[in-house]
Amino acid sequence: MDTHGEGKKDGDHGATVSAEEAAADQKKGFTETSSVEEIFASKAVPTWQKQLTLRAFVVSFVLGILFTFIVMKLNLTTGIIPSLNVSAGLLGFFFVKTWTKLLEKAGMLRQPFTRQENTVIQTCVVASSGIAFSGGFGSYLFGMSEVVAKQSTEANNAQNIKNPTLGWMIGFLFVVSFLGLFSVVPLRKIMVIDFKLIYPSGTATAHLINSFHTPQGAKLAKKQVSALGKFFSFSFFWGFFQWFFTAGDGCGFVNFPTFGLKAYDNRFYFDFSATYVGVGMICPYLINISLLVGAILSWGIMWPLIDAKKGSWYPAELSSSSLHGLQGYRVFIAIAMILGDGLYNFFKVLGHTLCGLYHQLQNKDSASVLSVSDDRSSPVMPPSLSYDDQRRTQLFLKDQIPTWFAIAGYVTIAIISAATLPHIFPQLKWYYIVVIYITAPTLAFCNAYGCGLTDWSLASTYGKLAIFTIGAWAGASHGGVLAGLAACGVMMNIVSTASDLMQDFKTGYMTLASPRSMFVSQVIGTAMGCIISPCVFWLFYKAFKDLGSPGSEYPAPYALVYRNMSILGVEGFSSLPKHCLTLCYAFFAAAIVINGIRDLVGKKRANFIPLPMAMAIPFYLGAYFAIDMCVGSLILFVWQKTNRAKADAFGPAVASGLICGDGIWTLPSSILALAGVNPPICMKFLSSGMNAKVDDFLAS
Amino acid sequence: MDTHGEGKKDGDHGATVSAEEAAADQKKGFTETSSVEEIFASKAVPTWQKQLTLRAFVVSFVLGILFTFIVMKLNLTTGIIPSLNVSAGLLGFFFVKTWTKLLEKAGMLRQPFTRQENTVIQTCVVASSGIAFSGGFGSYLFGMSEVVAKQSTEANNAQNIKNPTLGWMIGFLFVVSFLGLFSVVPLRKIMVIDFKLIYPSGTATAHLINSFHTPQGAKLAKKQVSALGKFFSFSFFWGFFQWFFTAGDGCGFVNFPTFGLKAYDNRFYFDFSATYVGVGMICPYLINISLLVGAILSWGIMWPLIDAKKGSWYPAELSSSSLHGLQGYRVFIAIAMILGDGLYNFFKVLGHTLCGLYHQLQNKDSASVLSVSDDRSSPVMPPSLSYDDQRRTQLFLKDQIPTWFAIAGYVTIAIISAATLPHIFPQLKWYYIVVIYITAPTLAFCNAYGCGLTDWSLASTYGKLAIFTIGAWAGASHGGVLAGLAACGVMMNIVSTASDLMQDFKTGYMTLASPRSMFVSQVIGTAMGCIISPCVFWLFYKAFKDLGSPGSEYPAPYALVYRNMSILGVEGFSSLPKHCLTLCYAFFAAAIVINGIRDLVGKKRANFIPLPMAMAIPFYLGAYFAIDMCVGSLILFVWQKTNRAKADAFGPAVASGLICGDGIWTLPSSILALAGVNPPICMKFLSSGMNAKVDDFLAS
Repeated sequence: MDTHGEGKKDGDHGATVSAEEAAADQKKGFTETSSVEEIFASKAVPTWQKQLTLRAFVVSFVLGILFTFIVMKLNLTTGIIPSLNVSAGLLGFFFVKTWTKLLEKAGMLRQPFTRQENTVIQTCVVASSGIAFSGGFGSYLFGMSEVVAKQSTEANNAQNIKNPTLGWMIGFLFVVSFLGLFSVVPLRKIMVIDFKLIYPSGTATAHLINSFHTPQGAKLAKKQVSALGKFFSFSFFWGFFQWFFTAGDGCGFVNFPTFGLKAYDNRFYFDFSATYVGVGMICPYLINISLLVGAILSWGIMWPLIDAKKGSWYPAELSSSSLHGLQGYRVFIAIAMILGDGLYNFFKVLGHTLCGLYHQLQNKDSASVLSVSDDRSSPVMPPSLSYDDQRRTQLFLKDQIPTWFAIAGYVTIAIISAATLPHIFPQLKWYYIVVIYITAPTLAFCNAYGCGLTDWSLASTYGKLAIFTIGAWAGASHGGVLAGLAACGVMMNIVSTASDLMQDFKTGYMTLASPRSMFVSQVIGTAMGCIISPCVFWLFYKAFKDLGSPGSEYPAPYALVYRNMSILGVEGFSSLPKHCLTLCYAFFAAAIVINGIRDLVGKKRANFIPLPMAMAIPFYLGAYFAIDMCVGSLILFVWQKTNRAKADAFGPAVASGLICGDGIWTLPSSILALAGVNPPICMKFLSSGMNAKVDDFLAS
Repeated sequence: MDTHGEGKKDGDHGATVSAEEAAADQKKGFTETSSVEEIFASKAVPTWQKQLTLRAFVVSFVLGILFTFIVMKLNLTTGIIPSLNVSAGLLGFFFVKTWTKLLEKAGMLRQPFTRQENTVIQTCVVASSGIAFSGGFGSYLFGMSEVVAKQSTEANNAQNIKNPTLGWMIGFLFVVSFLGLFSVVPLRKIMVIDFKLIYPSGTATAHLINSFHTPQGAKLAKKQVSALGKFFSFSFFWGFFQWFFTAGDGCGFVNFPTFGLKAYDNRFYFDFSATYVGVGMICPYLINISLLVGAILSWGIMWPLIDAKKGSWYPAELSSSSLHGLQGYRVFIAIAMILGDGLYNFFKVLGHTLCGLYHQLQNKDSASVLSVSDDRSSPVMPPSLSYDDQRRTQLFLKDQIPTWFAIAGYVTIAIISAATLPHIFPQLKWYYIVVIYITAPTLAFCNAYGCGLTDWSLASTYGKLAIFTIGAWAGASHGGVLAGLAACGVMMNIVSTASDLMQDFKTGYMTLASPRSMFVSQVIGTAMGCIISPCVFWLFYKAFKDLGSPGSEYPAPYALVYRNMSILGVEGFSSLPKHCLTLCYAFFAAAIVINGIRDLVGKKRANFIPLPMAMAIPFYLGAYFAIDMCVGSLILFVWQKTNRAKADAFGPAVASGLICGDGIWTLPSSILALAGVNPPICMKFLSSGMNAKVDDFLAS
């Protein structure tokens, strides 16, 4: 559903798996009945207008803000974003259920809470918080800013810098975020009904929502919400407690040298972050192990070795954040691996897509299914449809969205957009935009289709493609770096919202929600996101002065990575330090080879081969969050060993609680920072010798 | 069983309660059979010589060292010592059981593990670790040292100082520790069989041991041992982890300003001590709340108020540890409350004792029971004895210890002792010793009897009595302070071991262990303790240079308290700062009144009235350990709310694990200190402003 590009393969895929598991678990609520719709047969399906209630959008707005904070925090700290579907589903259900219960008791309930309404909320929340990712606040958009630009010596002139302000960010998002929706609307029947694509995340969400509305499922959901609530409070107060000890740099639990000062200097420490422990619990073991392997390889082995070459490979007097020094190796080798992995998967998913399409078109009239999609959501289909599918298809086709409406919408917005964007980014000429808008629907379709097959959204890969092509086209002398980043944003937004919408159609299909209400909900959610996300980012930007500087609390790693991709695309490899290019080639190739091996050895053994994309992230950031996430894995592992059933049922809820509590703490924390309230205490870590000196100083 | 004077009423009584509860729980292992001995009827009881196996003493020696470390740590930090019976029982059972299992598998088992052997281990371990308490390493004995003496301006001349050395400490303990055993041996039949005294701790221990040797009980014990083991490791590694961050004063988790720096300055903080969280789980809620109330009253209200009178009530330029300043109020008001509480309870228990004895003697031939002792260990007795009692009485009376042996032993040791002690303490004249040895048997009987009725050992109260009487008799000019402290040691050792032995006889009675083997085991255990305890203390003394100084890691609070009692006794009230005496009278009276009210309102309501003795301890030390203990209470409370059965069965084991792990960590920690290995990191807490200054200093 939410297809959070960079973290997609790792965070998102992982999240999907666990969402699926949770759904499978929750499915037990169906008490062995083979047909879901038979259970719900007695319940009337409201019209699409009735599915779109005011209360649904109020709840969505509140949750949208909550999740935007969380996603923004993740964006700006590591860029790894797990799927928050389960928490969104749980919380949405919880809020409306409580609300309707209260009204019912007061005798004022006019409309009962249906699963269609629940799907509307889910769609709206995910759409709105999705903008926090695809808006590029942690990547391309923030990569345009001066803070990030100043970190490299190339292209940091005014032509290639655009500092964030609230106005243009909201404007930009509004003109690019709706195109994706219109581009794939006409294809919904083909994708969902004819092709019977799986959309694992969408399916999992639908299972979750369906289960909530059975009596047993509702009971389990209540317990899950209670677990979520407990860990939410714990995590929130832990964040609050930590705050008191963070007066000054290098203070507090986030700088705890858990494994000693030497290891801390190499960024190996446990930083007591409830968020990343939670993220680690949601992501599969493989991701977390891959992160750790990457961290050990880079910060444990490579960087110390390269550091020893200081003075020979690169000038010794450079500042630690200069991209011509060690920092350059970190960033560019990470980029090489990300690109290698991205490229491999791009061709892999493209291959799957084409292959799938070919089969589809060949067997179209026989209505058979894709070989890859023999999932529970579409059990091998007899010529006659199952009751579930009959009923779902019937309702899915009832409310139509005319194709002319979609096309007219797309063209209108494209024209507005092409006219507006050059005013925001003078470097992005109108004809670049037209080219993007002509190719975008194809790419959007590819992405929506690939996502339906594999659950991987390649939005960020398409974005990178735009960086390199448009950047090179614009050229260095015409502000190509900024043009590339802006083009990336345009492309990513279209492609990402397209696959999101298709996931939602699938969820709607399975919960009998009307495609119209899905579309409207997605539009409203996107609109909310276009306002909420820039505002939340603005709060972070104003509250935390060192936003985006390396080694700070919010290093926004992908902002630098994206900017440097753009510089690479425009200016070539001239800016790399010595031997860096060779290393980049090696790691680029290694990423492709490792992916190849993973596909060759089969699914089981692939679980023991790390993922290159996940390995690349700690190259720049260090091991600390990988250690957090491994702690999360460990907790889940031990829990599963002691009580498998309980761990499976409540693990995602506990993890969501940890993530949400810490995430929402950033709201008061940033308000405190804005208000100029400083924490009273610094918890400082000094070496034994240094401590003696400080004690002498304090005594005098 | 172990009757750890000062902490007795709080720590010890509490521990007893929980040991009883654990035993009651473990009793379920008896599967509704009314007679315990019927279950064991098929098992032969070994002769007393066979009960005393080599393996039992090897295990006892190892556990003796373990528990000595723990008790020593507790002595030197707060002086609150919970009963370690449950852990000693569990661990003793675990070690020998594992050992015999291994031998059995190897086909080399010559003698099965019986409950009599288990009782021997238990007795020996408790006797040996009991010396760590009654040896006065945290009270009278260490109170003689220069470190403590230097804290007051009175009586700190050479005549009133005796620094600890290994030689005289071992000698002293050997000549005073065995007298108590001989003094009460002849009374065992009267106390255990005729009077049928309860000895709650002894009874609880017997239940525990009996239950271990039933199949169901063994199974539960195995689980309990596993829980103990887990928390032992956790606590040990937590101690280890903490160590790394303690380079320098004021560093590390023990100085964590959990509630802010202001609260920390008033000693309100959570110091992350696994030991005291464990102790809090063992002690009843009332003790922990009393501690907290005392802490709030003193450090929260009184000391800040008195501090405001600085310059008026006492000179402002005094050092913070001077007894003429604020420290004096802390110490003397605490002493006043302790004495008030002690005096009240002395007369109360004496009253009970006399009253009980009177009834006993009146109804002697009718063999009826004391009204107070209608406990499960002696259900209302018909003229004919129950099967259990018949069998127990029969075996208890089988092996006799001749009275002439006891008297001869007592007299011999008394003569040796009277001849030796003046060589160790020239201030303690031989005639003081003779007087003590003449009165001691009576007091030992009183204490053993009172302890049998109420489970309160008043050993430290009798010790204080000796301080005041002998101290005053010797007078200031003849080193009365030291004479008083030495006399306290002599008295406490006799009285304390006497009640210990009687508890063990009761345990032996209920587990069919022979009185002879109990006596021998107690003698061997005491001998072990006389060597182990001084050695362990010596290790602490050498390893931690600031042992005994206020505010350090090991403040040894009672050392100062005991010394100042002795000074008070010898020199009168002249040394007290202004208004301190008035406050002391008030708190002395308050302690008596509160105790009186507690007895008047009935047991239920008394649970809401704090214990003066427990309130007094934080007066000197501060709130930090009270907070630890309340955290322990809270954990247990929540656990009991969620799963009462599990909390009752495993709470004591978890608490023991926490206490033992942290306690045994002091062994490697003191070895590291001796070897001069300093922790590498200082976790420092600085105020925001101070931190800015330090950062400037570090940058320059």
